[in-house]
Amino acid sequence: MNEQTPAALKPGGEQGYLRIATEEAFAPPEMMPLYRDVLDGPDPDPGFKSLMGFYIRSQSPRARFIFERLQDLGALRLADMDARGIDKQVIALTSPGTQVLPTDKAVALAVLANDQLGEACRRHPDRFAGMAACAPQDPEGAAREIERAVSKYGMRAVIINSHTNGEYLDHPKFSPILEAAQALDVPIYIHPNTPPRSMIGPMLEKGLDGAIFGFGVETGMHALRLITSGTLDRFPKLRVILGHMGEALPFWMYRLDFMHKAGVGAARYECMKPTQKRPSDYLRENFYITNSGVAWEPAIKFTQEVIGVERVLYAMDYPYQCPPEEVVALDAMRMPLEHKKKFFQTNAERVFKL
Amino acid sequence: MNEQTPAALKPGGEQGYLRIATEEAFAPPEMMPLYRDVLDGPDPDPGFKSLMGFYIRSQSPRARFIFERLQDLGALRLADMDARGIDKQVIALTSPGTQVLPTDKAVALAVLANDQLGEACRRHPDRFAGMAACAPQDPEGAAREIERAVSKYGMRAVIINSHTNGEYLDHPKFSPILEAAQALDVPIYIHPNTPPRSMIGPMLEKGLDGAIFGFGVETGMHALRLITSGTLDRFPKLRVILGHMGEALPFWMYRLDFMHKAGVGAARYECMKPTQKRPSDYLRENFYITNSGVAWEPAIKFTQEVIGVERVLYAMDYPYQCPPEEVVALDAMRMPLEHKKKFFQTNAERVFKL
Repeated sequence: MNEQTPAALKPGGEQGYLRIATEEAFAPPEMMPLYRDVLDGPDPDPGFKSLMGFYIRSQSPRARFIFERLQDLGALRLADMDARGIDKQVIALTSPGTQVLPTDKAVALAVLANDQLGEACRRHPDRFAGMAACAPQDPEGAAREIERAVSKYGMRAVIINSHTNGEYLDHPKFSPILEAAQALDVPIYIHPNTPPRSMIGPMLEKGLDGAIFGFGVETGMHALRLITSGTLDRFPKLRVILGHMGEALPFWMYRLDFMHKAGVGAARYECMKPTQKRPSDYLRENFYITNSGVAWEPAIKFTQEVIGVERVLYAMDYPYQCPPEEVVALDAMRMPLEHKKKFFQTNAERVFKL
Repeated sequence: MNEQTPAALKPGGEQGYLRIATEEAFAPPEMMPLYRDVLDGPDPDPGFKSLMGFYIRSQSPRARFIFERLQDLGALRLADMDARGIDKQVIALTSPGTQVLPTDKAVALAVLANDQLGEACRRHPDRFAGMAACAPQDPEGAAREIERAVSKYGMRAVIINSHTNGEYLDHPKFSPILEAAQALDVPIYIHPNTPPRSMIGPMLEKGLDGAIFGFGVETGMHALRLITSGTLDRFPKLRVILGHMGEALPFWMYRLDFMHKAGVGAARYECMKPTQKRPSDYLRENFYITNSGVAWEPAIKFTQEVIGVERVLYAMDYPYQCPPEEVVALDAMRMPLEHKKKFFQTNAERVFKL
């Protein structure tokens, strides 16, 4: 790293585009005691214990850096944005958010998180935009809370931190959430969670359950379930956002199409009926992809090529991954300025109606 | 599809390169009753039941097409190769091979499979090359069988159909297998298997446990375990081949490096110690990638770009996925003939010492 380079970063659009970061995390301070209760309770979810047990309890510089910044929606965050040249953050309740809590506490946390984030967005309308939290454990209540957060605070999307106690959005019980998002025309951002108990075994055994690998496969699978279960045929106007370069689904697209057609054609699974379109069609028509965690030109350009330049958005993944050098590297990508502006700015403005 | 186009396909190298397909499958007819015994036994592995229960029992055209061809090492296979323009197949015992059987039956099947495949390679030395099967359930015996198959039949690689009863090659018990492969300088081809019981839950629930998704995440994880466990530091000359475009690990490379460094730096896992190199370095120095199942120019060129043109090899995935149109599409890839020749021919000649 050239230590002088990041000093050149600043907001304001001098480089020809604003930088809007679209998968940025926060945590209400009140959430931490709730998490400690879960961690101290009987038989906590092993993925949650691995993830939040680390971030809450570890004294490592990485964990302390993140723990402090997650809970800030003011001066510290704004200073970090300034130092990294970020004009605006689209902020969401960090994973697993409400989704690991008992229903009553989850419902209350969603309200509290939306109020805290909504007020912060009102204080800094040029710098912050928000995604609505909800408690999928209570699907009807979740739909009402999404409506409240969108109408009261102008929330731009819904954050779903992937599975809820091992259940996925394709389950019919979650239909009220999908209905609300489609009716309000706000996208659902499916953020990774650690794999559920029925999936995490050999990943947890070797420390691969988190962002290094387990996050991606759990969340890629979640998105794929929405496609192959026919959920997106039931909600054809639903817009879904995936981070981390689409959790590799763009790279898998050819194989998804081939094997989906083969499996459906052979009627291999009772649960896998024909869908209206190929898996890749849904990826190109219902999904948007952010590059959170992947500040890497080859993967970004690949995804622009196969999914579309209009559908690939910038994200930083603050505070989990926020080296200024990554912004410098992305600014330097060899692509037309017009494409770079879509990536950093105008796609986000369109998708989130900023 | 243009029905006339595939008629132009033939072996012989007229297009400027031979086509060597490097992940092609067979099954001894004697294996099928052994599989039926497992399927009919108490509590069969759910992934095996989903996979081989389908291919053995389904009357769908796809299952019958594959079942017949898996068991042929003669005229039918050669005719299929001719019709698809394939000069040579590098053939291996189909997944899960021995690895789902009781140890004694697994050991016997490995010998039988190697004898059948070895004799077929002797009958058709210009068209067939083989990989050695083994029974990882008996690691010392597996090492001896690999040595026998390599010395007697000139087998070019070792096939490991991913996990063995939920255990992976990073387990120290499997060291004899890695030692034998390294000492004989034959690569290990890690072919997918369905995820083990401790991982398959939400994939099986929605029909995503097989080649459409579960194969890739299980096998990508296997390779990643070899890297992050330090196994490739213990066996630095070991060569590993992954199919299916590297099971997406090339696409994940940036994130693997970032999160591996972050996790190791924070000492998050007792089981994840520092390694000598970054994950991406191992992928570029110990691994070879085939495009089995992915006849798709963007993913092939991406992988050539980030892993190296010398390390990306052609595979067809016969008989599971063998439309002639895929060969036509790959012949038509827009890349220098020199790169295409490496992809189709000379990389395979070098890696397998053909």
